[in-house]
Amino acid sequence: MEKIRLGPMPYMSVMPTVLVGADVMGKPNYMVAAWATVACMAPPMVCVAINKGRYTWKGIEENRTFSLNVPSVSQAVETDHCGLVSGAREDKSGVFTSMYGILGTAPMAAECPVSIECELFESVDCGSHLLVIGKIAEIHAMKSCVTDGKPDIRKIDPIIYAQSTYYRVGDRTGEAFSAGKKYRKR
Amino acid sequence: MEKIRLGPMPYMSVMPTVLVGADVMGKPNYMVAAWATVACMAPPMVCVAINKGRYTWKGIEENRTFSLNVPSVSQAVETDHCGLVSGAREDKSGVFTSMYGILGTAPMAAECPVSIECELFESVDCGSHLLVIGKIAEIHAMKSCVTDGKPDIRKIDPIIYAQSTYYRVGDRTGEAFSAGKKYRKR
Repeated sequence: MEKIRLGPMPYMSVMPTVLVGADVMGKPNYMVAAWATVACMAPPMVCVAINKGRYTWKGIEENRTFSLNVPSVSQAVETDHCGLVSGAREDKSGVFTSMYGILGTAPMAAECPVSIECELFESVDCGSHLLVIGKIAEIHAMKSCVTDGKPDIRKIDPIIYAQSTYYRVGDRTGEAFSAGKKYRKR
Repeated sequence: MEKIRLGPMPYMSVMPTVLVGADVMGKPNYMVAAWATVACMAPPMVCVAINKGRYTWKGIEENRTFSLNVPSVSQAVETDHCGLVSGAREDKSGVFTSMYGILGTAPMAAECPVSIECELFESVDCGSHLLVIGKIAEIHAMKSCVTDGKPDIRKIDPIIYAQSTYYRVGDRTGEAFSAGKKYRKR
């Protein structure tokens, strides 16, 4: 049970792999990101950490809109490509087919099973990164990836990111807000 | 490829299951959370969304320190229990063995493979939730769960959270910043 100290480092056990979509100087651009999660229930919000120097940030700042797109494991090549090259150097507008939703300026990757359309709520200057918080305007999902009105993880087959490696979701191990009913005091 | 609109809802494809540790009125308390990710690389930071009414928040506000603890799939019962009952109603200080690190007031669950010790950096009022951002003071990890100085996902066996269900990490599907090299323009 003894623990050792590894020093401070940016660590989280498991993370989603998403594509941040933004129009930069009138053209759709997609960058890969893993430092993303839900930020609020009501109103629904998400957040994503973006390096200050990123091309994508220019577009978010300009339009105050962006999207988070959830790719499938089968889209790992296109997804990872968006993490290898900067939009400042290469036009990435053709990697995915862009569609627009109710905000009008947040490009979304049509091929990705789920796209989260966001309006910029706030950006927090943390140092090297901005923690970009977005109010969810709409969730767009492929009909084939939806069950009972919600995105279905088994149909989406999302990419998990952890320590420079991609994984897929494994076995279901239990129900949240239920498994703990078996707890007995030590 | 056609997408349907599901309406705004708090959604992220995959999330980590963590235990937020805080001393509340002098006693360690642990709450379960999934809305957590890395917020910054330099300095290293994490963030976690916490409902404003949570007992745990009182402790974070008071001490300006907290921890994020990563449980294994084998600890799902204790972990989920911490999400079923509030520390305001039941003393949860005995669910895990608490240890303290360099900050002195952030209790960490000794039994969890990894504990992230944090100093409160900022909390952003998003509505129902506060997005709590912490500067990482230290990463404490069980020696048996470390490879080359870093927490090892295969040894940790962390709990993924998605839509009220727990999963374990599945197969490795590729290397990040590498898989995309196979990309060819359409």
